[in-house]
Amino acid sequence: MEPTVSAMMAKVRQTNPLVHHITNYVTVNDCANICICAGGAPVMTDAAEDVPDMAAHASAVVLNIGTLNARTVDSMVLAGKAANRAHVPVVLDPVGVGATPYRTATAERILREVNAAVIKGNAGEISVLAGLGGAVRGVDSAGAGDPGAAARKLAARTGTVVAATGPVDYVADTQHILTLRNGCNLLEKVSGTGCMVASVVGCYVGACGVSADSVAAAISVFNIAAELANVKADGPGTFRVRLLDAMNNLTGEQVDARLRMA
Amino acid sequence: MEPTVSAMMAKVRQTNPLVHHITNYVTVNDCANICICAGGAPVMTDAAEDVPDMAAHASAVVLNIGTLNARTVDSMVLAGKAANRAHVPVVLDPVGVGATPYRTATAERILREVNAAVIKGNAGEISVLAGLGGAVRGVDSAGAGDPGAAARKLAARTGTVVAATGPVDYVADTQHILTLRNGCNLLEKVSGTGCMVASVVGCYVGACGVSADSVAAAISVFNIAAELANVKADGPGTFRVRLLDAMNNLTGEQVDARLRMA
Amino acid sequence: MEPTVSAMMAKVRQTNPLVHHITNYVTVNDCANICICAGGAPVMTDAAEDVPDMAAHASAVVLNIGTLNARTVDSMVLAGKAANRAHVPVVLDPVGVGATPYRTATAERILREVNAAVIKGNAGEISVLAGLGGAVRGVDSAGAGDPGAAARKLAARTGTVVAATGPVDYVADTQHILTLRNGCNLLEKVSGTGCMVASVVGCYVGACGVSADSVAAAISVFNIAAELANVKADGPGTFRVRLLDAMNNLTGEQVDARLRMA
Repeated sequence: MEPTVSAMMAKVRQTNPLVHHITNYVTVNDCANICICAGGAPVMTDAAEDVPDMAAHASAVVLNIGTLNARTVDSMVLAGKAANRAHVPVVLDPVGVGATPYRTATAERILREVNAAVIKGNAGEISVLAGLGGAVRGVDSAGAGDPGAAARKLAARTGTVVAATGPVDYVADTQHILTLRNGCNLLEKVSGTGCMVASVVGCYVGACGVSADSVAAAISVFNIAAELANVKADGPGTFRVRLLDAMNNLTGEQVDARLRMA
Repeated sequence: MEPTVSAMMAKVRQTNPLVHHITNYVTVNDCANICICAGGAPVMTDAAEDVPDMAAHASAVVLNIGTLNARTVDSMVLAGKAANRAHVPVVLDPVGVGATPYRTATAERILREVNAAVIKGNAGEISVLAGLGGAVRGVDSAGAGDPGAAARKLAARTGTVVAATGPVDYVADTQHILTLRNGCNLLEKVSGTGCMVASVVGCYVGACGVSADSVAAAISVFNIAAELANVKADGPGTFRVRLLDAMNNLTGEQVDARLRMA
Repeated sequence: MEPTVSAMMAKVRQTNPLVHHITNYVTVNDCANICICAGGAPVMTDAAEDVPDMAAHASAVVLNIGTLNARTVDSMVLAGKAANRAHVPVVLDPVGVGATPYRTATAERILREVNAAVIKGNAGEISVLAGLGGAVRGVDSAGAGDPGAAARKLAARTGTVVAATGPVDYVADTQHILTLRNGCNLLEKVSGTGCMVASVVGCYVGACGVSADSVAAAISVFNIAAELANVKADGPGTFRVRLLDAMNNLTGEQVDARLRMA
């Protein structure tokens, strides 16, 4: 029997997984703080001279192309390869893929040169990568047909666990698909909530191993924290602050009572 | 008759303009979040390979030299030229111009190679660019003589809309000048409130077209949100959080009741 | 007689020291805002073309290797040398030293090429630099033997003021050591509280001169603000927000009443 979501949450907090991020400079601080509040230890470094050593000692590596450039993309590949050699799972967040040719080419390059364990994107991004014609405007999903089908197709094509996030989240591996219905509307009004999810996924696959269940647990825990924060929020500003508190203070009982996963 | 400020606010929220930023890594997260709360869709990207495509598809491009370097300055010029070709308005925030020779030379280069639609700076920065001997210390205004006169002179010289911000804000085009008296003292105690204003200006010129009126509307809406946040703030930390809430929750009635523009 | 901590706090606020940071993109916004709330004027710039001019006009320069790369490390050396020529004190925060060879080599290079006035790190980092076998995992201390002894040894070896932070903080010069017992547990749950301390140290050495007393005053004021924020916090998110408020609103009476320095 799989461990429950609350059991995985306890394991993350006990393990304190080191999560090496190469990520964008827009939302990086929120990624670091949500990682701490989830029970992980974040480290951000992107120099070619530094990333192979850091990735090899990490519990998970998160690659996020939000503010990519030639230097950091090369470092993502270097870090990903070092992680692969050391059997450290790699989470790819293909931010804005489909919005521009460079973003699409970069995501494809990383997937070609690195064995990603998890791909997490918004519905549009996952549909683009699945070849199902999703639309992305800037870094936002702008249409995705059937995101669950896209997640399944991309999982089948790549052999990874794929998460397509949105009002409803889908997590697929080559055999199963999980449908997650936690969360709240204010998540759409804060920059980087998708990036934060990827950081939490890094914590969970780092501490609990790679599976659709551990990825779904990470997303659900984050979304349940968001529901609790939502109650105390007057808008996007207070919501973001309360999200960190809620993630840190979340109990297994709260998770068990609120979980909506099928 | 020009649309009212509250009518422009409604249009921004309805249009959801995509605002492409090449900006500094200090305040970029606040720029993204204020842009969302103003009704826009922020995207930050600065790679030479990416910016021409992103800028061409944006509603506005914001160039901010706060943490400039040779690579990103080249990208600002590339993005600005692509925006010019696609008739996308460019907003320049010449952060710290006058504080060092490199900043001054860079702002002048951008203005030479790119047709900016709007220049928004603090009073010292605008006075420096206008050749009226303003003083800038670090990234803060340190003296500006008559900021309204500086805005007018720079607008006349460049043909752009020019905003000089401070305790009182001035917005000039080649023919008019508007004087804005909203805001509160705590705006001076948070890093990046000037950068945030430029992001909001990007939203308004992207959705409502370039004019002294749309630039003044953006600044006024931001400053009115600041007044509302000020009431709920215990200091700079809570003020910043409440500013996002207030910007998101602002009503046309609040704007109409509080607007102090002449 | 040395000025009291509260007298130094007053002097910082009156002087408004310009603190030039070359720092990481994870916690840079918090550094800017805590610097303002402490009474300083932050500026962040890392281009080779810009840093000699900015450093020479600053009251202090803070070098933080949290997200180092070849370009910015070269700029740190350039800025540090310009600061040395202009008699501007340099504060080094050797983030993650000991976690990877590149970080260790970079900290050693900076210390070789620049005369640092202050080295501030967590206990593990200071123990690594002191050659006393500390352990660093990612950017977190993972064991340090006796941090006070490490601070003393590194101060003796380098002739700088050395601060080793943690649940108890130690500040050593070549002759004395101070033990600081303010602070709260939530400081460990927010990314970048160590970086923020370095920014506040920059303010204090910039305004009050370099001494173990001014460094200890900076750390103590920050930690006392943290104690006051802790009372109003529900978790790491609200704590961080309240920390800025508390730093801004702190009174000399609060400092005098709470100071635990020996």
